[in-house]
Amino acid sequence: MDTLAAYKEHLRDIGKLGSALSLLHWDQRTQLPNGGQETRAEVVGKLTKMVFELSIADELGRYLEELEKREGLSEEERASMRVVGKAYRRNKAIPPDFYERFAIAASKAETTWEKAKERSDFLLFRPHLEEMVEYARQFAEYYGYEESPYDALIEEYEPGMTSRELRAVIEPLRQELVPFIKRLQEEGTPPETDFLRGTFSKEEQRSLSLQALRAIGYDFDAGRLDLAVHPFTISIGPGDVRVTTRFLVDDPLSGLFSSLHEGGHALYDQGIAPKLRWTGLDEGASYGIHESQSRMWENLVGRSLPFWDFFQPIFVETFPAFSGVPAETLYRAANVVNPSLIRVEADEVTYNLHIMLRFELEEGLITGKIAAGDLPDLWRDAMDRYLGVVPEKDADGVLQDVHWSSGLFGYFPSYMLGNLYSSQIFACAQKEIPDLDAHSTRGDFAPLLTWLRERVHRFGMIYEPKDLVKRITGENPDSSYFVRYIEEKYSQIYKL
Amino acid sequence: MDTLAAYKEHLRDIGKLGSALSLLHWDQRTQLPNGGQETRAEVVGKLTKMVFELSIADELGRYLEELEKREGLSEEERASMRVVGKAYRRNKAIPPDFYERFAIAASKAETTWEKAKERSDFLLFRPHLEEMVEYARQFAEYYGYEESPYDALIEEYEPGMTSRELRAVIEPLRQELVPFIKRLQEEGTPPETDFLRGTFSKEEQRSLSLQALRAIGYDFDAGRLDLAVHPFTISIGPGDVRVTTRFLVDDPLSGLFSSLHEGGHALYDQGIAPKLRWTGLDEGASYGIHESQSRMWENLVGRSLPFWDFFQPIFVETFPAFSGVPAETLYRAANVVNPSLIRVEADEVTYNLHIMLRFELEEGLITGKIAAGDLPDLWRDAMDRYLGVVPEKDADGVLQDVHWSSGLFGYFPSYMLGNLYSSQIFACAQKEIPDLDAHSTRGDFAPLLTWLRERVHRFGMIYEPKDLVKRITGENPDSSYFVRYIEEKYSQIYKL
Repeated sequence: MDTLAAYKEHLRDIGKLGSALSLLHWDQRTQLPNGGQETRAEVVGKLTKMVFELSIADELGRYLEELEKREGLSEEERASMRVVGKAYRRNKAIPPDFYERFAIAASKAETTWEKAKERSDFLLFRPHLEEMVEYARQFAEYYGYEESPYDALIEEYEPGMTSRELRAVIEPLRQELVPFIKRLQEEGTPPETDFLRGTFSKEEQRSLSLQALRAIGYDFDAGRLDLAVHPFTISIGPGDVRVTTRFLVDDPLSGLFSSLHEGGHALYDQGIAPKLRWTGLDEGASYGIHESQSRMWENLVGRSLPFWDFFQPIFVETFPAFSGVPAETLYRAANVVNPSLIRVEADEVTYNLHIMLRFELEEGLITGKIAAGDLPDLWRDAMDRYLGVVPEKDADGVLQDVHWSSGLFGYFPSYMLGNLYSSQIFACAQKEIPDLDAHSTRGDFAPLLTWLRERVHRFGMIYEPKDLVKRITGENPDSSYFVRYIEEKYSQIYKL
Repeated sequence: MDTLAAYKEHLRDIGKLGSALSLLHWDQRTQLPNGGQETRAEVVGKLTKMVFELSIADELGRYLEELEKREGLSEEERASMRVVGKAYRRNKAIPPDFYERFAIAASKAETTWEKAKERSDFLLFRPHLEEMVEYARQFAEYYGYEESPYDALIEEYEPGMTSRELRAVIEPLRQELVPFIKRLQEEGTPPETDFLRGTFSKEEQRSLSLQALRAIGYDFDAGRLDLAVHPFTISIGPGDVRVTTRFLVDDPLSGLFSSLHEGGHALYDQGIAPKLRWTGLDEGASYGIHESQSRMWENLVGRSLPFWDFFQPIFVETFPAFSGVPAETLYRAANVVNPSLIRVEADEVTYNLHIMLRFELEEGLITGKIAAGDLPDLWRDAMDRYLGVVPEKDADGVLQDVHWSSGLFGYFPSYMLGNLYSSQIFACAQKEIPDLDAHSTRGDFAPLLTWLRERVHRFGMIYEPKDLVKRITGENPDSSYFVRYIEEKYSQIYKL
């Protein structure tokens, strides 16, 4: 077989096992009866190992080496080799027994973290956290880096991003956001929300989510909506991108926005060109770019006035208790700003500050400037400075997120980058699509989705995030779009 | 690694991929959005090929060869080698390119069969049927046999069974059943069924099935109930045995019995000893033994008067329209005998005659005594002699079943054997469990389930079907139990 054909066949094999693995994961979190957990873990372990072995197979190394010298490859073939080659080199750099020790330690750390969070006992978690930091530093050494070991880690989630660049983004952002939030709190008039109190059946909330997902263009012939404790979106293949959500009986909006968020992820995956299937390019350009799509549909669309002009009658039909409540009142209620302790409950104004705090702490851990034992105090101090709230217990502070216990360092910034990218991309869409708001008011989101498909989705991983943003918007990534969006929107809502 | 350990590890690898495949199949038939079908077929194809390659791997051949000489293996280890070794030799006997040609031909034959059935056009299907027969005959030659090529095929579904033995069972059975059905028709008083007319919501039927499954001891912590067009049961692993069913809005009983049938399969799989997982022995002893468990819970339990004594109040609570209808009336209505054209709609009295007809025809096809072109006439003739009804079109005759188009010859007898085994095993249970009927009347099926677990389920494939029946009942397989059960039950219901 020709080397290029053999290379592609190898990726197809990885892709097929990957599709089976995705289904195993989806099922585990939505359908699996409790009695099947133990066997499922072993099956997932086996397939994961097989995929990993294929990703570092010697023959793959030979294909890459040979093809890198070859002329006349297409842009997609070159991009595939960029992505697959990088994963090959990074995975190959990790000694298998080191990786196995890490996996065992991470599993123990996660279990202990759960207990520690339950009891709000940081000291219980601390030795595991120290161990995870040590592993992360060692991973960084194996991967290699130019300036900071943290860069080697963030590369996994946001290719091409560095801690220097992140700091350059964060500093001005913080200088704008912290005082703005203070002004909102001190001078603003918070929206009315009391009218939202009540009990809302999950069946009716589900119907609402289905209608919202259909409206934004999620294709139910190529996906489905199920329940999960921690909502997620998963691509099992082209034509099979599944979303999950969860509903709170005392909150009619939370589940809806969770569905729109996951729907945004899903529109991205449903829009990746089918020809990229199993080429190594059939995923989002980065975690940050992926998050930009979920945040766009959740916040820039779902929490906008045009959306509520369209959605108010559907909302009222589902929950007649709200008849007579104007669209604008619902819109305002969906945009309450409330500096709080917990990241996953944060509104779009305060969210990034939760991330900045985590970035500073985890970067310090990885570079060695911060000791794990100092985290609880540093956490409280930063929360006070950024958001003016301080956790009374570590369960609501440093112990709230699972990431570090799983060894995920460098992941958090993706959430922030998603927010920043989303407003920059959306500003571009507003400029280029005539009467975008008028379309949304009519419930016609096709112009936006078509534009996103054309400009963002179809490319998958062909371009690195920075290049993609430049291709889409003609500009480098720029956080001022986010600041402008937030200040304009919330000055109006809070009547500053 | 020690050869025995290596052998077991090899089987565990097959088992893990098999578990993933089972989930892929379950999902395909219950959850998969339409857009995911194409990719799913490729993923299933890949994993199926991997499992097949492992099942004929040279190292497996070496392990088997070495272990067959070894002393001191446990009974289970020997049984594992019996089952795995047979599959190894049979699979190895088929040249890969022959198998590939067969798979392609079968796929085409199935597609054409669907069309032919739709149009009731046997001539359209005939060349494909001829081709499938040719393949089956060739498979038989590759597998090898002593007396009849048909024996080589039935071995796949009912190890140790031969066409000679089947004929010896069928002949007396037919001599009893055909005149008995005639008597029922001519002299019997059919049960009242008009009262069952109505519309019954699928949601309520589902609730009824859930209650019935819970009552018979199906463990929902180790399984789940979903909808499927063609109901099936699938074991994804110990602790994860899933059933499916379907509901007809104009029939409150059909879906319930479908659930009990699948529940019977599932109780078997849930009862296989967990230690047999991934040893090659973690399935039912044969298709016939498996069917004995589904038919037992569907018919000998579910269509019995004690069951309806227990279930009548639940049924009435779900469907208040039936309040006042006594248990016995429901019991009788669930046991209408109606010689009809379609096997899958047949009652338990006439069912076996549908199978005898198919056995005679397919055996004739494989031995060459019958030409495919003669099937429609032979079918009509046999239907007339056995059941007194004749299909007007081949869609309701020779074209009704998918099996032959998929190349499945030798499969049908399992359905009949299931019926025969079920009454023989149940008769033994009645003898050994004190007051079995009284327990059932109280909705207490634990004594029966415990007995079945102990005597049937836990062994998996350790014993071949004939040995297992002998172990359970102390007797060789014997069809007279079925005849006695049918004649006693239906003489009473039809007031002969």
